[in-house]
Amino acid sequence: MAFCTAFIGLGTMGYPMAGHLLKAGHTVTAFNRSAEKAARWQQEHGGAVAATPAQAASRADFIFICVGNDDDLRAVVKGEGGIFDAARPGAILVDHTTTSATVARELAAEAQTRGLHFLDAPVSGGQAGAQNGKLTVMVGGDPAAFARAEPVIQSFAASCKLLGPSGYGQLCKMVNQICIAGLVQALSEGIHFARHAGLDVALVMEVISKGAASSWQMQNRWQTMLNNQFDFGFAVDWMRKDLGIALAEAARNGSALPVTQLVDQYYAEVQKMGGNRWDTSSLIARLEAGH
Amino acid sequence: MAFCTAFIGLGTMGYPMAGHLLKAGHTVTAFNRSAEKAARWQQEHGGAVAATPAQAASRADFIFICVGNDDDLRAVVKGEGGIFDAARPGAILVDHTTTSATVARELAAEAQTRGLHFLDAPVSGGQAGAQNGKLTVMVGGDPAAFARAEPVIQSFAASCKLLGPSGYGQLCKMVNQICIAGLVQALSEGIHFARHAGLDVALVMEVISKGAASSWQMQNRWQTMLNNQFDFGFAVDWMRKDLGIALAEAARNGSALPVTQLVDQYYAEVQKMGGNRWDTSSLIARLEAGH
Repeated sequence: MAFCTAFIGLGTMGYPMAGHLLKAGHTVTAFNRSAEKAARWQQEHGGAVAATPAQAASRADFIFICVGNDDDLRAVVKGEGGIFDAARPGAILVDHTTTSATVARELAAEAQTRGLHFLDAPVSGGQAGAQNGKLTVMVGGDPAAFARAEPVIQSFAASCKLLGPSGYGQLCKMVNQICIAGLVQALSEGIHFARHAGLDVALVMEVISKGAASSWQMQNRWQTMLNNQFDFGFAVDWMRKDLGIALAEAARNGSALPVTQLVDQYYAEVQKMGGNRWDTSSLIARLEAGH
Repeated sequence: MAFCTAFIGLGTMGYPMAGHLLKAGHTVTAFNRSAEKAARWQQEHGGAVAATPAQAASRADFIFICVGNDDDLRAVVKGEGGIFDAARPGAILVDHTTTSATVARELAAEAQTRGLHFLDAPVSGGQAGAQNGKLTVMVGGDPAAFARAEPVIQSFAASCKLLGPSGYGQLCKMVNQICIAGLVQALSEGIHFARHAGLDVALVMEVISKGAASSWQMQNRWQTMLNNQFDFGFAVDWMRKDLGIALAEAARNGSALPVTQLVDQYYAEVQKMGGNRWDTSSLIARLEAGH
């Protein structure tokens, strides 16, 4: 079934995701803060472009959002010219931004008072997953709204699951980032040690990547880590944003994240090295620099 | 081709490994510090039992060793009634103990002066890998000795690789343990956070175990971690022994292992909780106990 959709935010992730909605047969009216990028998207993919989030959302059944952070999200949803100004009753907002669970709950409650639905739906899979339409989508919100949105989200998803009520998509994404942070540091220490020990790192990785030390990060990042290649992937600035959200939530729910906290500080040091845009695997560059 | 072999140390790992040598058609004369366990092994598997390492090694082409630590290894190799007292010229010692690279180099040098060969060959794959004959074997030493030993080691190996000269098998094993330590802590923090956030941990693991956070540890340990089940697997005492060796080597080669060092201290706290024999995944028990 084809729907009338809107897409707010044509960044690294949103740009290809909105394209997949069109390819799946839905109509898409897009809004982007930089109009030039919206024009480029329209030229490449077709679809329509709007001057404000409200204008993009005014006729949509599903309004997808993929912006930078909590404040950006509040601005496009309830700011001037925002989605709440124009969305039709019954419309479903699907937010793919990685945000706090707090803002997800806040906007879901406000959406409900307006006869709208809001699903928090952060993704993992990175730029490659967005381009291939193979993202993992972690959703929080009302089960009935999820059931309606899920077939449309499938346009760019390999997996799309409801984790619980509003905020639970974001909480699941936090678990994902917590598991990655310490894991990448452990892998960095392993490769750093292997280099200093004079080992053939490629051979070591071949041997140990089949057993209890193996991970997606080991299999997909050891080679670029060894080559000091970090100009791709998921940027340190974004990882710090995500870890900040997770650490704040941990402070609220009383869980202890000592290594996650430490690795967040290591990422701050990578930023000081000029690594804001480097992939998260650049933790090894910090070790090699003697920090 | 069938060889005359000796096996020194019928512990959790050595017991089934020596059994696999027999099943592969080699003769095995075993020695174990506790004679009762050696008798039990003989009753279960056949083979012969000797009263000292020297007696076990006296006629062997290959002398396998799997004991506790550096000191145990020195004792069975060059102590009174040790292997060096009796081994035939040209015999190859294959040491499966996880030890320092220092003792591996020391014994390899001494073996050479006696016309013997010494390969350091620590394993990974745990008790299950030893029982199924599917261990990963990481070897350091002379390539010619490795070429002769490799088909015999294959009796209990899924993978057997030469990593470099003497000590390099041990160095590779250290990399393996370094990669595991921080990874298990990261996974523990993720599950601990998920619990406190009220998430359905099984569902979270199903969702994130397909992407960038995935690991062997996540796939094989999340459920037991959630159930506080730690009476299996690789014991904390052994992990601390291995991390101690790796941290000492890092101090020598100038590499920085800050998270590995921290996690080693966390394991010390697990020991204080009575977790000496618990699986390494018990790091989560420390978090749950509020340390």
